[in-house]
Amino acid sequence: MTQEDAPLGEFDLIRRFFTDIGAARSDVELGVGDDAALLRMPSGADLVAAVDTIVAGRHFPDGSDPRSIGHRALAVNLSDLAAMGATPAWATLALTLPSVDAGWLERFSRGLSDLAGAHRVALVGGDTTAGHLTVSVQILGHVERGTALRRSGGCAGDLLLVTGTLGDAGAGLALVRASHTTGDAAAAAALIQRFEYPSPRVEFGIAMRGIATAAMDLSDGLAGDLPKLASASGLAAHVDIERLPLSAALSAVTDLQQARDWALGAGDDYELLLAVPPRNCEKAVSIAARLNLRLSAIGELRPGGGVTWALNGRESAPPGQGFDHFRRASTQITV
Amino acid sequence: MTQEDAPLGEFDLIRRFFTDIGAARSDVELGVGDDAALLRMPSGADLVAAVDTIVAGRHFPDGSDPRSIGHRALAVNLSDLAAMGATPAWATLALTLPSVDAGWLERFSRGLSDLAGAHRVALVGGDTTAGHLTVSVQILGHVERGTALRRSGGCAGDLLLVTGTLGDAGAGLALVRASHTTGDAAAAAALIQRFEYPSPRVEFGIAMRGIATAAMDLSDGLAGDLPKLASASGLAAHVDIERLPLSAALSAVTDLQQARDWALGAGDDYELLLAVPPRNCEKAVSIAARLNLRLSAIGELRPGGGVTWALNGRESAPPGQGFDHFRRASTQITV
Repeated sequence: MTQEDAPLGEFDLIRRFFTDIGAARSDVELGVGDDAALLRMPSGADLVAAVDTIVAGRHFPDGSDPRSIGHRALAVNLSDLAAMGATPAWATLALTLPSVDAGWLERFSRGLSDLAGAHRVALVGGDTTAGHLTVSVQILGHVERGTALRRSGGCAGDLLLVTGTLGDAGAGLALVRASHTTGDAAAAAALIQRFEYPSPRVEFGIAMRGIATAAMDLSDGLAGDLPKLASASGLAAHVDIERLPLSAALSAVTDLQQARDWALGAGDDYELLLAVPPRNCEKAVSIAARLNLRLSAIGELRPGGGVTWALNGRESAPPGQGFDHFRRASTQITV
Repeated sequence: MTQEDAPLGEFDLIRRFFTDIGAARSDVELGVGDDAALLRMPSGADLVAAVDTIVAGRHFPDGSDPRSIGHRALAVNLSDLAAMGATPAWATLALTLPSVDAGWLERFSRGLSDLAGAHRVALVGGDTTAGHLTVSVQILGHVERGTALRRSGGCAGDLLLVTGTLGDAGAGLALVRASHTTGDAAAAAALIQRFEYPSPRVEFGIAMRGIATAAMDLSDGLAGDLPKLASASGLAAHVDIERLPLSAALSAVTDLQQARDWALGAGDDYELLLAVPPRNCEKAVSIAARLNLRLSAIGELRPGGGVTWALNGRESAPPGQGFDHFRRASTQITV
């Protein structure tokens, strides 16, 4: 905390760093500064709402760059809207801070604002409290009625597609924590970037309405997340592990076994998992190509229940559980 | 934590305690369990959104009854919507917990659910993380376009009205902390109840649309909050301190000076402060009577800026600042 900012109070704080964050939108009738925000919904649209919290020492290491923390707090929420095929519009922020540090706040709000601006999201409300660093963002958006992607819409025979590459964020976190090391500085930087600045697949999610039958975002790792989509759709899922998309950077820093472990279990990739009927796959591939986004078929939905995993045609042991904050909290990040 | 619940993970937790919370609403197309909630907005209405966080040791003492914590986390948000004249409909919850305790969660969810049900609010999403006890609720509602109450609408000559009585929650907190004592057990219980289970004035707020010109809720104490309404309306405000509504319970446990200090500065009352033109005051009084709600004129809006305080016709020193979590965190509650 700089000397001149020592007496900065909550209200000044909010005014100084959290007004005019993100896009200026004409549908914000009243933003930060009253008891609540007033927002104009487009007609014929459903409201889409999600909330996700990130906690220091749990979801990111203590001492992380506040610009990354601001980015991630919004990105994980944008990713939820992407998974619904919804258009993000507004966000509110509940920020719990151990102390008032103007430099920290400036970088945090820049990370939040840059990503918000890129997705035309306006920050319309917030609350700042004192305590352990905890960032909770609520994202609001809309989707044309009846067109949202749900987890429950998958059909037997649908292909399972994933965007981007998996495991990069897991490797990035291991590199940040120095629980994994590499001599390849460029690959390490790329992987850390993937952990610190995930890219929510908002545009692709919106484009998948009417093409995918089901979708969800991969926040907890494929091994933990896929069973939820399969179960919601009332189906079994099968994955061929050798088809998991791995980045060149990931392959450069570790062996194939570790790379696949991260791809399946580490989480934090914020890629989309989609169920797409074979007849729509060409459309999906062409849209992904237009967005310069890798899209990979990794398996399919089948009648029945549960998830089966195969490696080169042979059934493989089921990977460990997905990210579960209470189970893994003590081991995931060394606080 | 009971033995049988030891392995309860995050997903089980959310399923067990946070599904079917509050009202069942036909406008919830998709609630807890997907990436985001899908909600149907009434046509011609604006969306109203607010977020408020309460933190253990800051906004309530450590060891508080979890039923009260669940109630208050929602009540403070309902109060924000009341201040806009909006109808609450849906809420999301971001809950950060130090440990998984089924008994705690059951009482917490009961407190939340009882109040949600009473106001026909459905819990449609949530996120549970591990960490210092922090409860962030985002409330969503709607209001007929163009009718919301704002802080900025006040006019010179409007009377300043407050609902209920002020200072009770401040006294209740002091009694809980045992920084204040009394021999009057019934009065103490009533005041503690006012701190632990505030009643957001939702119905009255909705009824004040078209009658009040400005409104806000009193979360930080009149001395801290009134300047915000006056400033937003571009006006001065005057208050006659002897007109502050004090409850019989408050008067039973302390002297007039301390009672007024709590009424002005302690916060947590969650009553409404309204600016009402004299021509509409009779209507406001009659609506309050119908709702069995005390309504008191305490002053007026005047041309100019700032707030003046008078006691029995003589100008009085301005009371201390309103609740500011960073300034008062270390003194408000002994952690």
